[in-house]
Amino acid sequence: MRGSTFGIDGVFVENTASVVGPKESEGPLGKYFDKTVKDDLLGQKSHELAEIRFHISAIRYLLNKTSHTENDVDLCISGDLLDEITGASLTLREFDIPFMGAYNACATFAESVITASVFISSGKFSRIISSTSSHFSTAERQYRFPLELGNQRTPLSQWTVTAAGAVMLSDVPSKVAVKRATLGKVIDLGVTDANDMGACMAPAAADTIFRHFAESGLSPDYYDLIATGDLGVAGSELMKLLIKKRGLELGLNYNDCGAMIFNRVSQDVGQGGSGAACSSSVFSGYIYKKMLSGALKRVLLVPTGALCSKTSTLQGESIPGIAHAVAFEVNE
Amino acid sequence: MRGSTFGIDGVFVENTASVVGPKESEGPLGKYFDKTVKDDLLGQKSHELAEIRFHISAIRYLLNKTSHTENDVDLCISGDLLDEITGASLTLREFDIPFMGAYNACATFAESVITASVFISSGKFSRIISSTSSHFSTAERQYRFPLELGNQRTPLSQWTVTAAGAVMLSDVPSKVAVKRATLGKVIDLGVTDANDMGACMAPAAADTIFRHFAESGLSPDYYDLIATGDLGVAGSELMKLLIKKRGLELGLNYNDCGAMIFNRVSQDVGQGGSGAACSSSVFSGYIYKKMLSGALKRVLLVPTGALCSKTSTLQGESIPGIAHAVAFEVNE
Repeated sequence: MRGSTFGIDGVFVENTASVVGPKESEGPLGKYFDKTVKDDLLGQKSHELAEIRFHISAIRYLLNKTSHTENDVDLCISGDLLDEITGASLTLREFDIPFMGAYNACATFAESVITASVFISSGKFSRIISSTSSHFSTAERQYRFPLELGNQRTPLSQWTVTAAGAVMLSDVPSKVAVKRATLGKVIDLGVTDANDMGACMAPAAADTIFRHFAESGLSPDYYDLIATGDLGVAGSELMKLLIKKRGLELGLNYNDCGAMIFNRVSQDVGQGGSGAACSSSVFSGYIYKKMLSGALKRVLLVPTGALCSKTSTLQGESIPGIAHAVAFEVNE
Repeated sequence: MRGSTFGIDGVFVENTASVVGPKESEGPLGKYFDKTVKDDLLGQKSHELAEIRFHISAIRYLLNKTSHTENDVDLCISGDLLDEITGASLTLREFDIPFMGAYNACATFAESVITASVFISSGKFSRIISSTSSHFSTAERQYRFPLELGNQRTPLSQWTVTAAGAVMLSDVPSKVAVKRATLGKVIDLGVTDANDMGACMAPAAADTIFRHFAESGLSPDYYDLIATGDLGVAGSELMKLLIKKRGLELGLNYNDCGAMIFNRVSQDVGQGGSGAACSSSVFSGYIYKKMLSGALKRVLLVPTGALCSKTSTLQGESIPGIAHAVAFEVNE
């Protein structure tokens, strides 16, 4: 392999499903999501169990939409942010489908879509589900503080998206295809602030995007939309600065799923949305539908992840980032 | 895909590396490991950082053995048991190689080898490292109790292997090939005892092994060795019972990496070894070398994982298992 960018042939998005919480449904993309719920606890006794219900619901919705049975699906490649990805593991307990657990923090959706695409392009697999979930209340208490403490949020913090997004990838030709990908590396510039995820992830995003264009020979204006996963507004600015230093300029076709999903003025979300379901729900809900309608034809999605745990943070380790890029295109 | 068993062509084990702690080096397989260390803290200030050093050391050792630079490797697919797989993530911070994080608990090594094999067989990748680590002291405090408490161990408990194992898979023909695989499903028979991992994982192992033979048309005596990852002695007996109920009998060619790595009489390890590095170090250290020498020609490795976190256990969730099977064969 030359570099870490490669083309993908014969892999298509058969359909997508997104299930989001109340805050996400009130945001600018609210109308694009398939299913919105009013209570983010979903009648469960814990937010962890609620997150699992979101994830189950997204996969069930996807199966219903595509009229496929569990038997028609070769594999689920799924992940989330809960310790030991118990969200995805306990979700897959409900389905008679083989399971591979993916984890690259909030870049997991990209990892999952890329893995599924290579599997399908190998000719051994016909249909694979890629899915991720996240939940504001499970992430806050796991990575930062119990919500009951009522801690004040710092200016650079972001708001974890409560949602699940699921994509059915298949070898049957359809309107939207997966066309190429760039694999990310672990990059650490020494940021230690667990409340500033954007700064942790920006260097990795800049590196992956830079390599994507250097290795593919494409220029940024080839895409209608280049969307990072969840750098937030401050993180996006940092990323653009870092990539400019390497001689590449991103134009008005650049955006960030975390910046898109909430209204920062009215929704009190700090720098914007974050979480493993930020990119998966924005892709499944908004981007895919805009591609179906023809409003977007070529999209580079770059989910971004901060690689830390509460233990690594408490032990004073800096927080490296990772980002994988995956290009979707409308078949003309 | 018919069922979840598939053949793999053109994927070979270029080499392996294993680095183990003092207890593992004193066990029956001690002489097969590449590198043994006397102090499992490795001069670090925490056992988490020590586990990362084990993992880094195994990958470096593998690069040295194969005389490859980081640039020659297309991808590392790695995982471990630490929350948010920070072991693998911080390990990969040290290497200029793309990274995908895998997590299926102690079945991660199988997930990683299967993913790498499909990637290479797709023709897009030439050389991929699969690696996992685990550490007794990090696993005990994360999943059960701080070691400082001196808790008594229960009769069905197992001893997490302190080690890292890494395998270089490649498209260049060599003596040992990856031939086929069966993907595992999440299976939960309701076991809730976090000290009895064997019982949590046995149903999944039985299901995967049963499906492997049903779908491949092979019979168990086709293999010289069928080795589960870390069911331990009691868990292995349970698995054999479950598989017998479905009409399949495993003979003397069946063993378990967790039962093989320690001497249960002299080493006080409960039912045997466990951990994400149990199967990776036993494969990299013992099985691969026995295949090189010709003593083993066909091996079915079935790493097994228990899908829980301390949160899911404390919330009273039962612990499902998963197991993936991967067959290695000597090219005649």
